[in-house]
Amino acid sequence: MIKEFDKRNSVEEVEEGKILQPKFDQNNLIPVITVDQINNEILMHGYMNQEAFRLSMNTKEAHYWSRSRKCIWKKGETSGLIQKIKEIKIDDDQDCVIFEVELCGLQASCHVGYKSCFYRKLTFREGHYTDKLEFTEKEKVFDPKEIYGNAPNPTKL
Amino acid sequence: MIKEFDKRNSVEEVEEGKILQPKFDQNNLIPVITVDQINNEILMHGYMNQEAFRLSMNTKEAHYWSRSRKCIWKKGETSGLIQKIKEIKIDDDQDCVIFEVELCGLQASCHVGYKSCFYRKLTFREGHYTDKLEFTEKEKVFDPKEIYGNAPNPTKL
Repeated sequence: MIKEFDKRNSVEEVEEGKILQPKFDQNNLIPVITVDQINNEILMHGYMNQEAFRLSMNTKEAHYWSRSRKCIWKKGETSGLIQKIKEIKIDDDQDCVIFEVELCGLQASCHVGYKSCFYRKLTFREGHYTDKLEFTEKEKVFDPKEIYGNAPNPTKL
Repeated sequence: MIKEFDKRNSVEEVEEGKILQPKFDQNNLIPVITVDQINNEILMHGYMNQEAFRLSMNTKEAHYWSRSRKCIWKKGETSGLIQKIKEIKIDDDQDCVIFEVELCGLQASCHVGYKSCFYRKLTFREGHYTDKLEFTEKEKVFDPKEIYGNAPNPTKL
């Protein structure tokens, strides 16, 4: 079970080495991209502090840092939308993580009710992308009011 | 051609609306996940400021903000590893973007020489993930010295 992360000593070791040496940003967070292991679909983009990363590695269930609630957040704790981690990848400079996960429960990840948080795309017109959005998921998987009740919405302006 | 982004007025509009209202963080950046359109493989995780996002939308070629060099960076400008944007997605709270791209040139994206920046995974032992890494790409696609010469390495400790 991991307790502490290794120190970053050299660029070569970070890029070409075989030891995890994650970089946490000015807010002590590292971004994590969560994908469905079945088809590589990106489900969400979240953040972890050191403790959330350790919990994810040690329990094999995705834990994040909620920037809006300012606490560790085990995905699915209240909703049942637990994510079982099947693979963890790290990038070249070790400042970003990928979780490949198996979805539990309703097979969804997004608090708005869709499977993926990325349920909209930019439309294309006359040779360039515009700021008009089109929904790529046509229906919600679940009604967020049923699952989350009156819990505060994590989306902030 | 987009010149300015729409203002964020309400959580409902941000989550369920059909207008792009991106949120830039305290450093005026938004994270972007770049994937290979062919198989959804995640290639890199970068950042854009408003200008890089506008340039990406208007030119259909991926532009980022280099946090180490502190400048706009058109991917492939020196290396030829240009990324043609085939789809742009935005997430529920509009603070993260996906580029689905077609790779040009050497069919690679990582400055270390691999196709994807995510060329290592955490090994698994006795029921949990460890801090020992395993390479998932066995060979580099190109020699970074040949492509980048003596340009400074963007990886920072």
